[in-house]
Amino acid sequence: MKQRGIEGLLITHLPDVRYLCGFSGSNAALAVTSSRAVMFTDGRYLAQAQLETRAARIVITRSVREESCRWLAASGAKNCAFDPETTTVADLALYRKALPTGRRRLFQPLTEPLVRNLRLVKDEDELRLMKQAALLTVGLFHALLPQLEPGIPETTVAATLEHTARVQGAEGMSFETIVASGPRSSLPHGRATHQRLPRKGFLTLDFGVILKGYCSDMTRTVFLGQPTRRERFTYDAVREAQQAAVEAVKPGVSCGEVDEAARSVLRKAGLAEYFTHSTGHGVGLEIHEAPRIAADQSQSLLPGMVVTIEPGVYIAGQFGVRIEDMVVVTRSGGQVLTPASTGWMHL
Amino acid sequence: MKQRGIEGLLITHLPDVRYLCGFSGSNAALAVTSSRAVMFTDGRYLAQAQLETRAARIVITRSVREESCRWLAASGAKNCAFDPETTTVADLALYRKALPTGRRRLFQPLTEPLVRNLRLVKDEDELRLMKQAALLTVGLFHALLPQLEPGIPETTVAATLEHTARVQGAEGMSFETIVASGPRSSLPHGRATHQRLPRKGFLTLDFGVILKGYCSDMTRTVFLGQPTRRERFTYDAVREAQQAAVEAVKPGVSCGEVDEAARSVLRKAGLAEYFTHSTGHGVGLEIHEAPRIAADQSQSLLPGMVVTIEPGVYIAGQFGVRIEDMVVVTRSGGQVLTPASTGWMHL
Repeated sequence: MKQRGIEGLLITHLPDVRYLCGFSGSNAALAVTSSRAVMFTDGRYLAQAQLETRAARIVITRSVREESCRWLAASGAKNCAFDPETTTVADLALYRKALPTGRRRLFQPLTEPLVRNLRLVKDEDELRLMKQAALLTVGLFHALLPQLEPGIPETTVAATLEHTARVQGAEGMSFETIVASGPRSSLPHGRATHQRLPRKGFLTLDFGVILKGYCSDMTRTVFLGQPTRRERFTYDAVREAQQAAVEAVKPGVSCGEVDEAARSVLRKAGLAEYFTHSTGHGVGLEIHEAPRIAADQSQSLLPGMVVTIEPGVYIAGQFGVRIEDMVVVTRSGGQVLTPASTGWMHL
Repeated sequence: MKQRGIEGLLITHLPDVRYLCGFSGSNAALAVTSSRAVMFTDGRYLAQAQLETRAARIVITRSVREESCRWLAASGAKNCAFDPETTTVADLALYRKALPTGRRRLFQPLTEPLVRNLRLVKDEDELRLMKQAALLTVGLFHALLPQLEPGIPETTVAATLEHTARVQGAEGMSFETIVASGPRSSLPHGRATHQRLPRKGFLTLDFGVILKGYCSDMTRTVFLGQPTRRERFTYDAVREAQQAAVEAVKPGVSCGEVDEAARSVLRKAGLAEYFTHSTGHGVGLEIHEAPRIAADQSQSLLPGMVVTIEPGVYIAGQFGVRIEDMVVVTRSGGQVLTPASTGWMHL
């Protein structure tokens, strides 16, 4: 803040609040000046705030947003900033209305996402939690495999996975579990339906857990029955693309280059047109956070970033394949946090 | 839109998009003029968009927000509007940048939440789904009861509940399941922890499912062992407050009056200071939506609104009680959608 000439910062995005002061309730604002920090929440969260909040004073109020604005105005901080990416137009109007006349222009949008930039690089404590979350995820996959057989509804597969996750300590799933079998595997986001696993065809499992606030994310595609040559060829191409991108992960390499590493393999295999999304995304307190591993991204990888690498090929109405790992950028390259085999697996 | 002189509307809040055109993917914008509607999403959702989208043309693009703005500009619509409650400051800047110079002021904030107002009153199809979701929730509670005993971790209770929900067809839970036992019942939002159910004390269960997109929400507080006179008195007071508020639900009554019906009972019992939140909220495609059942709310209830009625008393470090039902406003009163007994239950 000092470097940017910002004297006060208002943080209302809940994962940012949690990141900075530990509080995980569903209603909060954090006001920060050069010397003080106050976390505002409502009466439902009194005990939880006292338990969780570090390095900030706690104020309980019915008007979290208004009170945090007024506190910043009263603190004497001039140039105050808010995050335009996570502040709604209505909230900004509310901030301005809460301020004394003549000080309504106190808040200006951040020109760079200060907290998001801090969150880009995970510290040791965060990495320890993320490794635990990732390993729990790998364990879920292995526990599920012997239970997969034709005739089971996709929703039952999801239910089994999610129940095991909960029993093993997850707070919940990090997103709606994807169980997409047979022709449904051609849906990149095929949430589990009542459809039953077929005798023959791909089955894409894409899931993740939340463990102590941190998200995991992993995809494996397995096969039931005997594949056609084209199905097997496609799987091998996606696997090669995924490996190429994982191997491209290294400090200093741009996100666009990692994307290209996967995309060029699929281009050579004549499958590029079926790879309809970007290669990956950052993951942490949120399931999707910076950076984006996509064609147009010049952001360089830094040690401590955690990203997913998840190329896929989707042939509408026929089949699809996606393979996804979480990878942490190390000093010299990348380390896969979800070390389940990506080899051809048929049940 | 016509009544408000709005010629074009840009909708980016995902539950609003789903409400208006059926599409449930995680990236979408819906652009509407007096004669046309176009839903913009990205390549991952091609098949899903074709399956789900009603009454709107589908455009697949990498730049959902920019393209939807440009389409509105090109449609010839003048006064275009966006929802300031769900549009970030950064998004608005992006819209303006996407437009041709000279048309950058095309978008103005809605002065009333048009789509949110439509969603306030549920139609017959929505009510059918919400009743199903609510009944599934009641069934979960009854199935869980015989499994509750001292020594079981709260997380296992949550896991059992969530697994049964999934097997019975829920897409997921509508929020992180609250299982708060013993002194933790004094946390209004006590998410399940590794703590084991005590031999003696309250156990608050607050949970809901998502069924075909619609959320349910219900709370019951049961007792393990023998209560003190104060514990029993508190339970009875909360139950009376909850019943009073349920009985206050009627078309034309204001949300503030319903809140007061619950609050006045607790005031008479000397417990008002421990009722630290509002009485309830609307529920539908989102777990929290309009209206708010709170002290300052003048909004009148209308037939077809679905709200929660959930007063609670929380005595820090000691115990807490909350009882919650979903209630639909009918032509003549209110109908409880979660008809599980609220009578004293001790295990």
